[in-house]
Amino acid sequence: MTPIILDCDPGHDDAIAILLAAGDPAAELLAITTVGGNQTLEKTTLNALRVCTIAGITDVPVAAGCPRPLTRPLRIADDVHGESGLDGPTFGDPSVRVSGEHAVELMHRILTTHPEPVTLVPTGPLTNIALLLTRYPEDAERIREVVLMGGSTERGNVTPYAEANVYVDPEAAAIVFAAEVPVTMCGLNVTHHALVTPEVVARFEGLAGALGRTCVELMTFFGSTYRRLFGFEAPPLHDPVAVARVLDPALVRCVDAHVAVELHGELTRGATVVDLHGYLGEPPNAKVAMTLDADPFWDRVLAAVSRLG
Amino acid sequence: MTPIILDCDPGHDDAIAILLAAGDPAAELLAITTVGGNQTLEKTTLNALRVCTIAGITDVPVAAGCPRPLTRPLRIADDVHGESGLDGPTFGDPSVRVSGEHAVELMHRILTTHPEPVTLVPTGPLTNIALLLTRYPEDAERIREVVLMGGSTERGNVTPYAEANVYVDPEAAAIVFAAEVPVTMCGLNVTHHALVTPEVVARFEGLAGALGRTCVELMTFFGSTYRRLFGFEAPPLHDPVAVARVLDPALVRCVDAHVAVELHGELTRGATVVDLHGYLGEPPNAKVAMTLDADPFWDRVLAAVSRLG
Amino acid sequence: MTPIILDCDPGHDDAIAILLAAGDPAAELLAITTVGGNQTLEKTTLNALRVCTIAGITDVPVAAGCPRPLTRPLRIADDVHGESGLDGPTFGDPSVRVSGEHAVELMHRILTTHPEPVTLVPTGPLTNIALLLTRYPEDAERIREVVLMGGSTERGNVTPYAEANVYVDPEAAAIVFAAEVPVTMCGLNVTHHALVTPEVVARFEGLAGALGRTCVELMTFFGSTYRRLFGFEAPPLHDPVAVARVLDPALVRCVDAHVAVELHGELTRGATVVDLHGYLGEPPNAKVAMTLDADPFWDRVLAAVSRLG
Amino acid sequence: MTPIILDCDPGHDDAIAILLAAGDPAAELLAITTVGGNQTLEKTTLNALRVCTIAGITDVPVAAGCPRPLTRPLRIADDVHGESGLDGPTFGDPSVRVSGEHAVELMHRILTTHPEPVTLVPTGPLTNIALLLTRYPEDAERIREVVLMGGSTERGNVTPYAEANVYVDPEAAAIVFAAEVPVTMCGLNVTHHALVTPEVVARFEGLAGALGRTCVELMTFFGSTYRRLFGFEAPPLHDPVAVARVLDPALVRCVDAHVAVELHGELTRGATVVDLHGYLGEPPNAKVAMTLDADPFWDRVLAAVSRLG
Repeated sequence: MTPIILDCDPGHDDAIAILLAAGDPAAELLAITTVGGNQTLEKTTLNALRVCTIAGITDVPVAAGCPRPLTRPLRIADDVHGESGLDGPTFGDPSVRVSGEHAVELMHRILTTHPEPVTLVPTGPLTNIALLLTRYPEDAERIREVVLMGGSTERGNVTPYAEANVYVDPEAAAIVFAAEVPVTMCGLNVTHHALVTPEVVARFEGLAGALGRTCVELMTFFGSTYRRLFGFEAPPLHDPVAVARVLDPALVRCVDAHVAVELHGELTRGATVVDLHGYLGEPPNAKVAMTLDADPFWDRVLAAVSRLG
Repeated sequence: MTPIILDCDPGHDDAIAILLAAGDPAAELLAITTVGGNQTLEKTTLNALRVCTIAGITDVPVAAGCPRPLTRPLRIADDVHGESGLDGPTFGDPSVRVSGEHAVELMHRILTTHPEPVTLVPTGPLTNIALLLTRYPEDAERIREVVLMGGSTERGNVTPYAEANVYVDPEAAAIVFAAEVPVTMCGLNVTHHALVTPEVVARFEGLAGALGRTCVELMTFFGSTYRRLFGFEAPPLHDPVAVARVLDPALVRCVDAHVAVELHGELTRGATVVDLHGYLGEPPNAKVAMTLDADPFWDRVLAAVSRLG
Repeated sequence: MTPIILDCDPGHDDAIAILLAAGDPAAELLAITTVGGNQTLEKTTLNALRVCTIAGITDVPVAAGCPRPLTRPLRIADDVHGESGLDGPTFGDPSVRVSGEHAVELMHRILTTHPEPVTLVPTGPLTNIALLLTRYPEDAERIREVVLMGGSTERGNVTPYAEANVYVDPEAAAIVFAAEVPVTMCGLNVTHHALVTPEVVARFEGLAGALGRTCVELMTFFGSTYRRLFGFEAPPLHDPVAVARVLDPALVRCVDAHVAVELHGELTRGATVVDLHGYLGEPPNAKVAMTLDADPFWDRVLAAVSRLG
Repeated sequence: MTPIILDCDPGHDDAIAILLAAGDPAAELLAITTVGGNQTLEKTTLNALRVCTIAGITDVPVAAGCPRPLTRPLRIADDVHGESGLDGPTFGDPSVRVSGEHAVELMHRILTTHPEPVTLVPTGPLTNIALLLTRYPEDAERIREVVLMGGSTERGNVTPYAEANVYVDPEAAAIVFAAEVPVTMCGLNVTHHALVTPEVVARFEGLAGALGRTCVELMTFFGSTYRRLFGFEAPPLHDPVAVARVLDPALVRCVDAHVAVELHGELTRGATVVDLHGYLGEPPNAKVAMTLDADPFWDRVLAAVSRLG
């Protein structure tokens, strides 16, 4: 089992990422940490607690981190994820409680006490991870890998060349890509192949229990905003792809490449500049996901939800 | 017949663009103008004369324009096009002579004297066109359309997000996209479908006469550098795509979109930021080529060369 | 006598620059060219004709150039110079006529026919000069020097670090500073010492004739906007300083330094980055004015106006 | 007495800032924290301990913070401060020991336990302060004021428009200026009036004891590098000016202005854009030092050193 910490901003696809990380036998989910991103920190944290509550994830600490990016005001994605950040289902009060510890302290404590190096899986803006690396630079050697959902080798989803997680906190992303830790980037170029097709929805519907129904409601809302905003027939479930890469690297094939974040453009700020052809003459600093094996990916997601539900 | 002026920097694909523009019955090629780009102005001009000479294009004026971009030194592409800019064949001294007129004066004279508005087809850096629009802003209304090869909706070919023609003179490109003239952009996203496959080469080989042989030699050299530098199995013949769009718009389907040039990025300078999804809230200012109908495109190219040869 | 062409955008201080250039025996004023800047090209050209008319400058050709900057829309300074660009006096219809030639063609013709190299004195945005250098790069060797009013070694006057002439067309300024011509920059750091004090106004008042009265009206309006906008007790008469540098270099002492224009900043676009201490390791490319000898400067201005009036 | 924490990177002028903060009766020096800047964190921390040891400052905790800026590699100033960061005197092993606590934790603990709000006085790159505000955003209301040495309203000292402390970590500075805390900026425009003239050196020489001699040796070395690098006849003692502003605000007169840090320029990155004239239309977010009353400043510095020595 790979020990992981999931750093997220639920968010519909983050919710499924939590379920996959908690329900798959290949991962040991040590903590869930939250960050301001798809919605405010208050809401993303509440959403993490809601997901843990409905999924019966009661033994994994949940800790809140940074409410906003390093240098800019937070830009939320309520157009995609709704006012709650997790619109669609109706949630009761969560029974799982948030830790009193700051996300970065929890990550630090786990990294320095866990017997093995730990994999960090950020699926929101990289603010918490950047803060961890800045505050505790020596923890870098306790991080087995950072496997993140974010960026793109092609086009973006908030500006023509920028993906939301990197766009919201470009400096944090730059810190992570420049750090002395192995980084794997799962960008839109692969996550756009994790499409919640009607067949996938039908498989969620076929699950017994409340959790499956909640997933269906989440996917239905998410699908409706993706259709309206972006014209997608089926919405791409970005965040679980990063978790899947950790569970089974063969599901998400990568190449080595240099990745830098454009911090200074007028129209391209937050673009991940992935140098697949070596134009810039820099050595590779990341593994970059290039293909997703979608069928076994969905099998794994469904199995994890089924196991929890 | 559509009256056109081809503004180019030959260059292997520019050479074929000249042949297509001169040999296709749908176009009236009024002038060939040259610019520093793939090689120095001196070499691109010589190459234009060489192509005209071997193709028997003797009644089209050839005029040299700007030797370098507006604000930066020229960056040539001798890695792709060789030391002459047109490596591969052996050329004798050209019998066609260059005009004493500057490219911009020739364009201005034609625009103001031709009975109909004229289409400009730039296939190199946009320096000449930007200079024309700056020096003679009133000529804008005499330009039917600027149909350019350059930019990309996806990745670039000199940096991860920048295509060579725009990268070499980003300010010139910005001037063109901001001008009050209709602009059609044929970028890498379509020109990468104009592949000189072995079948295409075989068709050039099947042509009688010296011109076909020269084309084969050009395509062979061009293919070898594309294979070595970019790993392409067959090289993309960018520039004739813009000509083809003018000859028959149905060959190259476009969408309306806002296009801006990133002038200020550290890693993305010269990227064409094509806002296909309306992220930036700007009204469309260009037609952007999205698909190429490759088979009839090649038919047209081969027919033009055959007609000249 | 030094042969000069004055390229200006009148503008109150440009008006006095015209008078100084036309009335001082050390200069041979070969032409006045105009550019969009303080006001639209139409208005700055009309203002040049008005000044020539009231001053009896009838043998110097006046030609209009570029209406707007290379890459951006024009930003006028009607807050400083009023709706006409030359508010204050009442002008009748000018009797001097504008040339049919474009400013750049007139400059080119003079440069290539005058027996000696000619000094260009731009006191507006550098669009015309950049266009000249782009269209006729070979004219560079016929330019004795470009002595410009613009930039600053210290703070700016439209943003904290940018001066108006450079800010309005930063790319044009970059082209001029990068060109193979000797450049002298007279920036705000010296022109802020050319203050139209009450004593200076009194000297204008003491001149016999209508021209002196017009100067007083111009200075009174200019002083009122400078007082209101910038809190200056006496307004700085920027543009004649560049002319004075040509008339007598000892009036305006310079140092050699590297000057570059910031094209890419978010808050500093258009700043002249003058490397007085060699921080950037680039060789000097300009003479940079550092001190003005104000008393003989004013003597010279008054003498010139008196001679014309 | 004003409770303060001095966050520094000694550095010759930081050393005197420590002496002023520790020796002046108007300040209660609660802690000294260190940051990578003039030299590596290891060396700046050692230098803080050395200064405390020779000055007998034994009851003030010293804690090390960030070794490098948020997003870029550290750029040290060994040309100015020498290989040790405090070249000139010979120091023995320090008897004062560094705290085991991270600078940010020490600041946080003091801020949350001290009965009054505390003033932070950063005289190095703002990395530690930015980290504090990011990790503990709620501490902002416990900060009475941030009074920093850094930036400039005029020219810089590492590039034409950037001062070293801001240039080294522009993002950190941007975080501080954007934070919800009162900020006072003491930039080069005032610190260049805190000149260590021969008269000042003579006053240090007149002090009895080893501490005065060490100060003389520090000032002598510092003067020699300033003379060699910048041509200053007497070196400007930047950092104590920020301390002096806290001790007696009348010594350093300020105006309210909007200050932003240029993060994106090619030649101006790290410039503090101080909008003294309201060009940018933003409300003031800082007090900006404009004048230094030099004589009482030096009296205060000498008195503090005398008291310690």
